[in-house]
Amino acid sequence: MAIRTVIIGASGYSGAELVSILLAHPDARVEGLFGSAKREGDEPYSASFGRFRGRLDLPVRPASTEAVLACKPDAVFLATPHEASLEFARSLDGRVACVLDLSAAFRLKDATRYPAFYGFEHTHPALLSRAAYGLPEINRAAIRGASLVAVPGCYPTSAILPLLPLARAGAIATRPDGRPARPVIDSTSGVSGAGRGLALRSLFCEVHQQAYGVLKHRHQPEIDAYAGVPTVFTPHLGPFERGILSTIHVELAPNWDEARVRACLTDAYREEPFVRICPAGVWPSVADVRQTNFCDISLAVDPAWGHLIITSAIDNLVKGAAGQAVQCMNARFGLPETRGLLSTHGGTGA
Amino acid sequence: MAIRTVIIGASGYSGAELVSILLAHPDARVEGLFGSAKREGDEPYSASFGRFRGRLDLPVRPASTEAVLACKPDAVFLATPHEASLEFARSLDGRVACVLDLSAAFRLKDATRYPAFYGFEHTHPALLSRAAYGLPEINRAAIRGASLVAVPGCYPTSAILPLLPLARAGAIATRPDGRPARPVIDSTSGVSGAGRGLALRSLFCEVHQQAYGVLKHRHQPEIDAYAGVPTVFTPHLGPFERGILSTIHVELAPNWDEARVRACLTDAYREEPFVRICPAGVWPSVADVRQTNFCDISLAVDPAWGHLIITSAIDNLVKGAAGQAVQCMNARFGLPETRGLLSTHGGTGA
Amino acid sequence: MAIRTVIIGASGYSGAELVSILLAHPDARVEGLFGSAKREGDEPYSASFGRFRGRLDLPVRPASTEAVLACKPDAVFLATPHEASLEFARSLDGRVACVLDLSAAFRLKDATRYPAFYGFEHTHPALLSRAAYGLPEINRAAIRGASLVAVPGCYPTSAILPLLPLARAGAIATRPDGRPARPVIDSTSGVSGAGRGLALRSLFCEVHQQAYGVLKHRHQPEIDAYAGVPTVFTPHLGPFERGILSTIHVELAPNWDEARVRACLTDAYREEPFVRICPAGVWPSVADVRQTNFCDISLAVDPAWGHLIITSAIDNLVKGAAGQAVQCMNARFGLPETRGLLSTHGGTGA
Amino acid sequence: MAIRTVIIGASGYSGAELVSILLAHPDARVEGLFGSAKREGDEPYSASFGRFRGRLDLPVRPASTEAVLACKPDAVFLATPHEASLEFARSLDGRVACVLDLSAAFRLKDATRYPAFYGFEHTHPALLSRAAYGLPEINRAAIRGASLVAVPGCYPTSAILPLLPLARAGAIATRPDGRPARPVIDSTSGVSGAGRGLALRSLFCEVHQQAYGVLKHRHQPEIDAYAGVPTVFTPHLGPFERGILSTIHVELAPNWDEARVRACLTDAYREEPFVRICPAGVWPSVADVRQTNFCDISLAVDPAWGHLIITSAIDNLVKGAAGQAVQCMNARFGLPETRGLLSTHGGTGA
Repeated sequence: MAIRTVIIGASGYSGAELVSILLAHPDARVEGLFGSAKREGDEPYSASFGRFRGRLDLPVRPASTEAVLACKPDAVFLATPHEASLEFARSLDGRVACVLDLSAAFRLKDATRYPAFYGFEHTHPALLSRAAYGLPEINRAAIRGASLVAVPGCYPTSAILPLLPLARAGAIATRPDGRPARPVIDSTSGVSGAGRGLALRSLFCEVHQQAYGVLKHRHQPEIDAYAGVPTVFTPHLGPFERGILSTIHVELAPNWDEARVRACLTDAYREEPFVRICPAGVWPSVADVRQTNFCDISLAVDPAWGHLIITSAIDNLVKGAAGQAVQCMNARFGLPETRGLLSTHGGTGA
Repeated sequence: MAIRTVIIGASGYSGAELVSILLAHPDARVEGLFGSAKREGDEPYSASFGRFRGRLDLPVRPASTEAVLACKPDAVFLATPHEASLEFARSLDGRVACVLDLSAAFRLKDATRYPAFYGFEHTHPALLSRAAYGLPEINRAAIRGASLVAVPGCYPTSAILPLLPLARAGAIATRPDGRPARPVIDSTSGVSGAGRGLALRSLFCEVHQQAYGVLKHRHQPEIDAYAGVPTVFTPHLGPFERGILSTIHVELAPNWDEARVRACLTDAYREEPFVRICPAGVWPSVADVRQTNFCDISLAVDPAWGHLIITSAIDNLVKGAAGQAVQCMNARFGLPETRGLLSTHGGTGA
Repeated sequence: MAIRTVIIGASGYSGAELVSILLAHPDARVEGLFGSAKREGDEPYSASFGRFRGRLDLPVRPASTEAVLACKPDAVFLATPHEASLEFARSLDGRVACVLDLSAAFRLKDATRYPAFYGFEHTHPALLSRAAYGLPEINRAAIRGASLVAVPGCYPTSAILPLLPLARAGAIATRPDGRPARPVIDSTSGVSGAGRGLALRSLFCEVHQQAYGVLKHRHQPEIDAYAGVPTVFTPHLGPFERGILSTIHVELAPNWDEARVRACLTDAYREEPFVRICPAGVWPSVADVRQTNFCDISLAVDPAWGHLIITSAIDNLVKGAAGQAVQCMNARFGLPETRGLLSTHGGTGA
Repeated sequence: MAIRTVIIGASGYSGAELVSILLAHPDARVEGLFGSAKREGDEPYSASFGRFRGRLDLPVRPASTEAVLACKPDAVFLATPHEASLEFARSLDGRVACVLDLSAAFRLKDATRYPAFYGFEHTHPALLSRAAYGLPEINRAAIRGASLVAVPGCYPTSAILPLLPLARAGAIATRPDGRPARPVIDSTSGVSGAGRGLALRSLFCEVHQQAYGVLKHRHQPEIDAYAGVPTVFTPHLGPFERGILSTIHVELAPNWDEARVRACLTDAYREEPFVRICPAGVWPSVADVRQTNFCDISLAVDPAWGHLIITSAIDNLVKGAAGQAVQCMNARFGLPETRGLLSTHGGTGA
């Protein structure tokens, strides 16, 4: 029997990606599409995204808890702003099997950090403590039993996957002051990461390679909370639609060399279907992971300085959002995590 | 039982698109990947296209009839140059259930036209007469019984689908000299249409909006052979990866207005899963059909002049090549034509 | 002595292009930058466009007739919406030597056509009759004496230049009903043509090859007014920043062949520095004219049908807007028209 | 009297950029265009780059010392491969006032480093010792008297300009082992940086965000030779034509904070026309410097960790190649360095 799903926030890029994936998912069915709370109207979905013309008849309706519950969903995906996610997670709590939230509303366990980094007071700390961080590769058990999943941010996914196994294994050097040597993370994201809102910087003629949110980005505390080590993270925007490439620098602890790093990551992800450690000398391109749920990782070490360079590539809308959410749904409902997520139908060349 | 498939020419863009589609196809299995005859080596497929890393273990092998037959294929896809297709179609004839050729080697029924437009003498006219033109919407019955399918060109697909029903219904005006008023077709294609060969004009920094092959393009006789009317076709290249938009102008016969044109096309394609007639005022974008097998069509008529404007959009690598080939395979092997072809997992916005 | 210039509407793309060109112009000086009437504030120009950082100290000020006149300008450029242009042209009339308007407010001589195509009542028909249409290649004498210049639209420039000499020479066929055979114009523009306003369709992830404004575009009456023949014009948007490629189809009158068409256009533009007739077989690319004031034109004729195909390429922001305005300024103030406009510093490849 | 210039290697991207700049230069004249030694033929330059159609009549000729000298050049620009540059620099030595080489043939003072990083034996160490490194902001005096200028690489320009003043001022921390804490440089370049050669990775459909040459790039020793500190440099390619953004991380020495870093860079470049230190909070975009000779620099410091983040943006073909070469020519021939280099005619938005 198919999992009945509802998407709130279907008019954004992550919402549309969810619809695309769920439409092709053999064990799920899309039962309802809703705008975020603020949106009005009752338009057919193809008016928002022409590619669904003839493929999906559902309208996008204004979101309300009642209307959502009337769809009798097993899983509700929240592709909504933080504040809307907070409210829907609360109002749906206990009334659907699982809520999967793609916003940051439940990612940080420490409620006191929300005002500084997200600009809102966290009003539901009890829910927060029950939310499972939705990165299956590191938190599978919790996700399987969760009624609320906080799907990770896109940048954090690209950083945590390569860093956590190394941090746990003690691969990261310690500074003379006793603090860890912070890994440096320079990430470049496609423009879809900025969402579908009308902003000057998202106009076609305005986008170009550029850093932003330096030392202030909301994903910094999320990365630090789950990567196993404090980091310094600098996001950039690049002139392309989708994908993230993160380049990560790590000062290695004594006795760590390239072979040991490679073995550590290979061992960590040997059984993981969505993490691919590239052969030496092959550096992942965003083209390799576009419209897939893969995270590709490559690495090299400069032995004279004990300096490790990692690059990791994901699709920000798939492994960085909708695909990861569906992977969590699969885990939560007892399906193989790869179900509906193994398309390679993404790129052209490379 | 799954259809056993082999792809010859797997290292090009159409070949890779075939692999992507067939990997996700529930009733097909990829049994072998071969380069075109001229290519050497035995490299893993992910060395050609990183996105298949970990998804497909097959190497790309040098193509030979024996090696292909050793895979015991039911269907062999030829994503090869015309001359290679000619040879493989001949050598495989009678030894596999169906050969699906994506080149132009078998598209024109009249063998005498090959030297002028394609620069080669057609050496197998007997095969030519047995080949079925692989546009299911207009030639389904022949495809179902075919041992050789000539999959249409990308531009022709975008032009024939809107024009043929109108030509058949007598919608196109006659000139005073008794000849039909030729429809004007201006098409813009993404760069993948130029293939993966190393050519200056395909370099990233060289591509821009530009006409090419004016009055000389190889697809002109193919369009004229199947659209039901002679046309004048001008191809353009645009700075994007994939997709074709064709804008078509038709001088209407007396008594044809917008409503009648719309009814004609709507009736023709009412049962067709891959042709979408857009609502009035909605003009298809390449973004709507990217990585789908759809052909979107819209139209408007200037009543003062009896002038019809149609635009049609397809993905040149899917409905214009690999997707259409798989649709033909589905038809040939008794499957629903939509099997494995309903992904909407292509775009971001629009 | 340098021409003192002021730009109203400096915060848009055409306005910024004007500033770029005028900054490098040896005989002009930028004396004031103003927003369009509706904009507020007093920000430094580099806050709008980072590339002017350190190159131009002027702030962008709210526009008012008094503030503009206080700059003592010889020439005022209006890169403003139609309605604002109407008001500034009126209030500045007689008080500056020349107003150059980049909007459509004064392009159509027939005031009665404004409501239908532009949605406003033309409130200053007297000014309208005195405005010179600013296409120097066809209207130089009037521009030289004008106090108000209506700088042409981008699409019209790309269509009128190739069509007018042919229409004047009688090259265009007559239909049996006595009307001319309308040339078909299919144009593709870069996204900057849509302006800098916040619109969903201008977002990076939304833009793709697509027709729009079919049979309804505001440039249709402008083309028809100056091309010498009624036409049917279909605009498209393409995924690139700047440039227009127009593909134009003409049914030739008897006795016109390719040589005669080529001679007609070559003769018409032999002395024109900004119109380049390409050698046979060379089809202009948008890359060739990017950030230049050139209009490149190529052509071929299908003799069996008397069918002429022309493509013309311009930069929509230069020859289609700011460059043309400066060319008019040069003509108006007795300078060589090429002054400040011969940069080739635009492209990379091709 | 104008400087007579010749460009060898005019058929590449840097060569064409040189031609663009020199054509608009008020004190220089292009007297001859040559291919690199290996190229044949005698084609008009517009056959290589359509944008020069009608602007430059010179053909591109096969390069030979005699043919070059017959142009009686004052300055010869070598936009040639390393080996060709070596030979032309030698054969032209003493016979023209100044040779400006855009290859790496004379950038490293230590001849023994060429085999490892560039794959060739340096055959002219005497010339090497006389070559002036062509970064005027740090080596102006030597350039003014030089007969041979080694124009810097693109990545090195973007890294050396922000790092050298800091290294000289002692801003960079020392590691416990006594070595400096190496700055981390992550750079993303547009595709023109890969040149105009036919390579799979430069095809339109193959380019995407990706690291390459990790720990092996030829610019690593050049950066280290001139930045004042050893570094770790990782280049990336991004899907755009031109421009480089470098993100640089520096562990600060004690007593260095954001204000002191800003003061150090502001002081270093106060008189430099082509280095722009951005206001706090403004992060340079590649769009801001496209087709300009500017290097834009911004910075922020995380005080808790003494961690400095700098981003710098240049156009790889201008300040990273042709513009810098012309700046050197200006310095060498006693002109203001800005002559012919102040165009802002590059971008659209941002």
